[in-house]
Amino acid sequence: MADEKNWLIQEDRLDRSNLNHKETIFTIGNGYLSTRGVYEEGYPNEARATFVHGVFDDIPILFTELVNMPDWLPLSIYLDGERFSMDKGEILEYRRSLNLSCGVLNRLVRWRSPGGREAIIEYERFASLARPHLLLIRCKVTPKFSGKVEIRLSINGNVSNEGMTHWLWLEQGRQGEITYLINRTRATRIEAATAMSVKVSQGAPKSREYWDADNTPTEVLGFNAEAGQTLVVDKLVSVYTSREAPTPLRAAVQELQACRGWEAEQEDHRRAWAEEWDRTDVIIEGDDEAQIAVRFNLYHLLIAAPRQDEQVNIGAKTLSGFGYRGHCFWDTETFILPLFIYTAPSIARNLLNYRYHRLPAARARAREDGYEGARFPWESADSGSEVTPRWVPSPDHPASLIRIWTGDIEIHISADIAYAAHLYWKVTGDDAWLVERGAEIILDTARFWASRAEWDETSASYQYNDVIGPDEYHEHVNNNAFTNRMAQWNLQTAFQVLEWLEKNAPEKAKELKEALNLSPQRLGKWRHVIENLYLPVGENGLIEQFSGYFQRVDLRLESLEPRDRSAQALLGIEGTNKTQVIKQPDVLMLFHLLRQDYSKEVIAVNYDYYSPRTDHTFGSSLGPAIHAIIACEIGRIDDAYIHFMRAAQADLRNVRGNAGDGIHAASAGGTWQAVVFGFAGLRVSENGWKIHPRLPAHWKRLAFKFFYRGQRQEVEIRNE
Amino acid sequence: MADEKNWLIQEDRLDRSNLNHKETIFTIGNGYLSTRGVYEEGYPNEARATFVHGVFDDIPILFTELVNMPDWLPLSIYLDGERFSMDKGEILEYRRSLNLSCGVLNRLVRWRSPGGREAIIEYERFASLARPHLLLIRCKVTPKFSGKVEIRLSINGNVSNEGMTHWLWLEQGRQGEITYLINRTRATRIEAATAMSVKVSQGAPKSREYWDADNTPTEVLGFNAEAGQTLVVDKLVSVYTSREAPTPLRAAVQELQACRGWEAEQEDHRRAWAEEWDRTDVIIEGDDEAQIAVRFNLYHLLIAAPRQDEQVNIGAKTLSGFGYRGHCFWDTETFILPLFIYTAPSIARNLLNYRYHRLPAARARAREDGYEGARFPWESADSGSEVTPRWVPSPDHPASLIRIWTGDIEIHISADIAYAAHLYWKVTGDDAWLVERGAEIILDTARFWASRAEWDETSASYQYNDVIGPDEYHEHVNNNAFTNRMAQWNLQTAFQVLEWLEKNAPEKAKELKEALNLSPQRLGKWRHVIENLYLPVGENGLIEQFSGYFQRVDLRLESLEPRDRSAQALLGIEGTNKTQVIKQPDVLMLFHLLRQDYSKEVIAVNYDYYSPRTDHTFGSSLGPAIHAIIACEIGRIDDAYIHFMRAAQADLRNVRGNAGDGIHAASAGGTWQAVVFGFAGLRVSENGWKIHPRLPAHWKRLAFKFFYRGQRQEVEIRNE
Repeated sequence: MADEKNWLIQEDRLDRSNLNHKETIFTIGNGYLSTRGVYEEGYPNEARATFVHGVFDDIPILFTELVNMPDWLPLSIYLDGERFSMDKGEILEYRRSLNLSCGVLNRLVRWRSPGGREAIIEYERFASLARPHLLLIRCKVTPKFSGKVEIRLSINGNVSNEGMTHWLWLEQGRQGEITYLINRTRATRIEAATAMSVKVSQGAPKSREYWDADNTPTEVLGFNAEAGQTLVVDKLVSVYTSREAPTPLRAAVQELQACRGWEAEQEDHRRAWAEEWDRTDVIIEGDDEAQIAVRFNLYHLLIAAPRQDEQVNIGAKTLSGFGYRGHCFWDTETFILPLFIYTAPSIARNLLNYRYHRLPAARARAREDGYEGARFPWESADSGSEVTPRWVPSPDHPASLIRIWTGDIEIHISADIAYAAHLYWKVTGDDAWLVERGAEIILDTARFWASRAEWDETSASYQYNDVIGPDEYHEHVNNNAFTNRMAQWNLQTAFQVLEWLEKNAPEKAKELKEALNLSPQRLGKWRHVIENLYLPVGENGLIEQFSGYFQRVDLRLESLEPRDRSAQALLGIEGTNKTQVIKQPDVLMLFHLLRQDYSKEVIAVNYDYYSPRTDHTFGSSLGPAIHAIIACEIGRIDDAYIHFMRAAQADLRNVRGNAGDGIHAASAGGTWQAVVFGFAGLRVSENGWKIHPRLPAHWKRLAFKFFYRGQRQEVEIRNE
Repeated sequence: MADEKNWLIQEDRLDRSNLNHKETIFTIGNGYLSTRGVYEEGYPNEARATFVHGVFDDIPILFTELVNMPDWLPLSIYLDGERFSMDKGEILEYRRSLNLSCGVLNRLVRWRSPGGREAIIEYERFASLARPHLLLIRCKVTPKFSGKVEIRLSINGNVSNEGMTHWLWLEQGRQGEITYLINRTRATRIEAATAMSVKVSQGAPKSREYWDADNTPTEVLGFNAEAGQTLVVDKLVSVYTSREAPTPLRAAVQELQACRGWEAEQEDHRRAWAEEWDRTDVIIEGDDEAQIAVRFNLYHLLIAAPRQDEQVNIGAKTLSGFGYRGHCFWDTETFILPLFIYTAPSIARNLLNYRYHRLPAARARAREDGYEGARFPWESADSGSEVTPRWVPSPDHPASLIRIWTGDIEIHISADIAYAAHLYWKVTGDDAWLVERGAEIILDTARFWASRAEWDETSASYQYNDVIGPDEYHEHVNNNAFTNRMAQWNLQTAFQVLEWLEKNAPEKAKELKEALNLSPQRLGKWRHVIENLYLPVGENGLIEQFSGYFQRVDLRLESLEPRDRSAQALLGIEGTNKTQVIKQPDVLMLFHLLRQDYSKEVIAVNYDYYSPRTDHTFGSSLGPAIHAIIACEIGRIDDAYIHFMRAAQADLRNVRGNAGDGIHAASAGGTWQAVVFGFAGLRVSENGWKIHPRLPAHWKRLAFKFFYRGQRQEVEIRNE
């Protein structure tokens, strides 16, 4: 990795005012677990957290949340009895960097204690990508004085999710040289074992103690240190939960016993990362800002991607923050999944299988609502039941509650999931998966759509009423164009899949037709819905986002400038609902997913109408990447670049001010799509793939790889 | 205290199925702090808590809650490395007793470890009543084996309110022999210092270590124990918060330095308790069950009564549990305060001053609602603003929320507070307090009532519409008889007080008339309201609880039997609202407060109507004591005794199944009132006091003391 600067996220001062944002940025992880970029020794107002995929626990009113794991980081240093803490004493030098090429986080601090003792303190940590249950920290202390240096290394079970504790203490102790702690979640009763092994790689401890303090087992090393001589201590940690191992403690201890030490483990880890980047990297020459931003987004998706587990999904904030409580949305299928479908099909398959395993919950949901088939929840966590909070405290008046409707009526997600299943099949050619799992998703969501359609006598058409489309500024709308067309697509695709099955897997076709009761009569109804769905198109191809949208107040967004918050925050939920201001592209989203169905002219007409009405800056973080792609389609490359950079830097630059809650995963996935489908113009069909490059003028070269039907493809575009 | 059995709450087996109930029962405290009767070493599913008056912190949606303090109890014992825990090994003998006469909690356990080691383990603890910041535990270990015994003593800052953490860790360490921990609440930034000193009173530790584990500083004593030889270790703890001391740590350390050891401190503590009981005890001869139950209720009010602080109140669950989050209600003024007005006027004054200091908040509330004067919140905590939750999760469907209306419209509390202020004055003769503080409460609540009254043209009367009366089974009612009459009383009493002030403190009269703008015009309006308030009385004196009550469905409560829950839980909120079933006496409550206004005949008519319609068993815990008093008034002594015992044993017997949430403080206060105003028939007037005894047949003697106008009075009633 010669161009190291385009792989390093760096800072050279402690950024107190952006503490939580920086913690998100500097998150490390390996697809099993992520740990936010907090400091080992702690800092006031930190949002300290480690998350493991699938470890959820109940909370009142908000259903369930991803649980902050017992803390494996604590490593504190005492200089002649004074505790190292960056909020005290004096920071003489500070550097922190995350190497995206290998997921290693480094920090160097030269610090003078309030009592005048000085030392250089270095921390390096990584979560092994080669052995995902293994976590390592190396700490180096170089005192500028001769005296006592104490290093304390703990596991801490006293953690919370922003104040809410989920872990009960079960047991702790020592097995030989290994210290361990076992906790259990209160309601879901998931057991977690955290084991720690401490190695002194340089220096000779004068004393070595073990403190068996409840829920905070601690090893304490005492050194008589000499000025200028560096002490090196390694903290090796293993985490297992009862989700992966019947006896998590035994698994964690074995993992540590098999650990071959810092150097060897880091070597394997770096090798694993090199393979990862070989598949995933996107090279942009001529634009270092774009280059690092794209890699940053890819890195954060790579560390959140489940590699061994098909019972988990990627939350809207990955595993990097408390935002959205680890729940997943359509963000996965529509924004994130394409990256993995094209670069890591096995990860994409895991994520789709998560949905497949939750078909029973989706069916139960449809039945509860009085419909047939499968209706996926707007927010999903462990069980697959709906976990969208129905009420949340108002940001302005926390005693008042706001009713959240997305869980009730933002139904397009069922089509989005079917779309992703179909896309996976189309790109990978994984027929076996389609037969075993994908077809059932596509057919049963189609069943839902047919039963959910309402016949309207006046217009003699089927309608979908009382829904929320992708643009969430408008609730309880009728005939959202995106929802209607995606429902139709879902039904149409169901026929194609059924036809394909009948030809290529007739047994499965028979089985599914019986299981889902796909009688000729039912299929006739499907056809009737497809043919009579309400899908009006206006003059010049302008599509109305929903029935009556054009009658809403045509407020000019410029009239709200300058602003530092969303249109909804300024006008209120009701107020925004009455205008044409939209949170994110809705009609344009349709062009992105069903590009082949629309002409450039139609796209341009709609782009010109909707783009000025979109809250690009503080609306949905899902919007900019899609705008970039659509702008590319109609040759507006300068516009595209602005939208693209807004997406690419959403978290790096904290554009929306909420990156402290975690990475905007959809924006990260959208960033990759903007490069590949937007600037490179990649288009895949049954007959192969093509590109339609339209690079920003200053880009010299764009290169990336992907898999098409199991074969690796390489794309090289030079701007000449 | 010769009759020791009537002072001891005892159990001789570990009651796993009633763990939390017993924790409430065995709470110790001293008016500054209370600690639930949990086990020092911990137990699964315990509701471990210590509360200090006035230490509140914010929580989402539910505003604020009394904070579970850093845990001062932890004291664990290791027998040859095996940790003593009653959920493991074998309990060979178990006894626990709380001595109500001196607030000392004792436990003896003979325990055999899973590995076969046996020991007698004894704990004794108390919160000093003589020095309220001092808490003491003595632990005795008598092993039946020779080997290693380790005793670990900690302070633990890792505590939560049922999962919600409020404390941040600030600092910890050692000052000489004293170990300390400093924490701070997240939002309210109250600092708490907990300091611990460990004394070995018998036995010689072979090792003594200090573990400086974060947020759990721990002292560890290692003994080489001999079979049959008893080790005695004392844990002395002091707690201060920044509410009482500018430097809580310094105050806590000084408190410990001044501590004269277990024996001397317990002697002072017992002496303080003897004085307390000398003022407060109620002696019932001939009924041991009633005797111990009455003392139990008095004990729990005594340990919750603020002696040094006029900025705190007694929560509906005292300081003994998480129920109602430490919020106070009319329970204080109407149910608890009479006990203190009669037996400890300085405590009563503290509690009334709590309201006085919150007049500004009560005025702001009235203004917010569009009224004048002072409108006290239904639930009050630290600031005096309304802290009734507006929404709570439905018990059956936790994802659904139930709107709680009491905070909006249960307005009678403002009259209840005025009533208590007036009662305090009437009984104590504390004119200075009336002048300085009480008058302002009475006058400004009167102002509220005058502005809240609505003129109704049809009936040509003033009405109070859309309210909730004491009976909370009926929401949004008009002209609740209790509310209307108490509002009228409040206005009438305001005139009396004003007249008295004009005569006895003319300067203050002038000052208040100006400050509250009591113009002749305004006072004229008051008179108009008093004279024209809607207060209909039916035939035979039957009073309709609210307009239209008699038209509600006259459901017979017997038709719901047998039942194990309230009528509301069975019929739903809406369902119950439609019936005449009531949660607690409402009209009868009026007779209790304004006894002189109603004849025996009127009382009997209303008693006979309302009593069969009252959910005595699972309705409000506030009801039974009042029913007992009213039954006495009309000579129904057998009925009275049943209601009285239901009140007296509410918590001891866990009659309602929710004693685990904390003591029913109103019922405890009502129990005293039932004895004193009911069975003894004490009546106080300007000319002195009288009794009208009507004891249950089997009571041989009833004796108690009280203060009347500063003079101690003794009452002795013998049933001959």
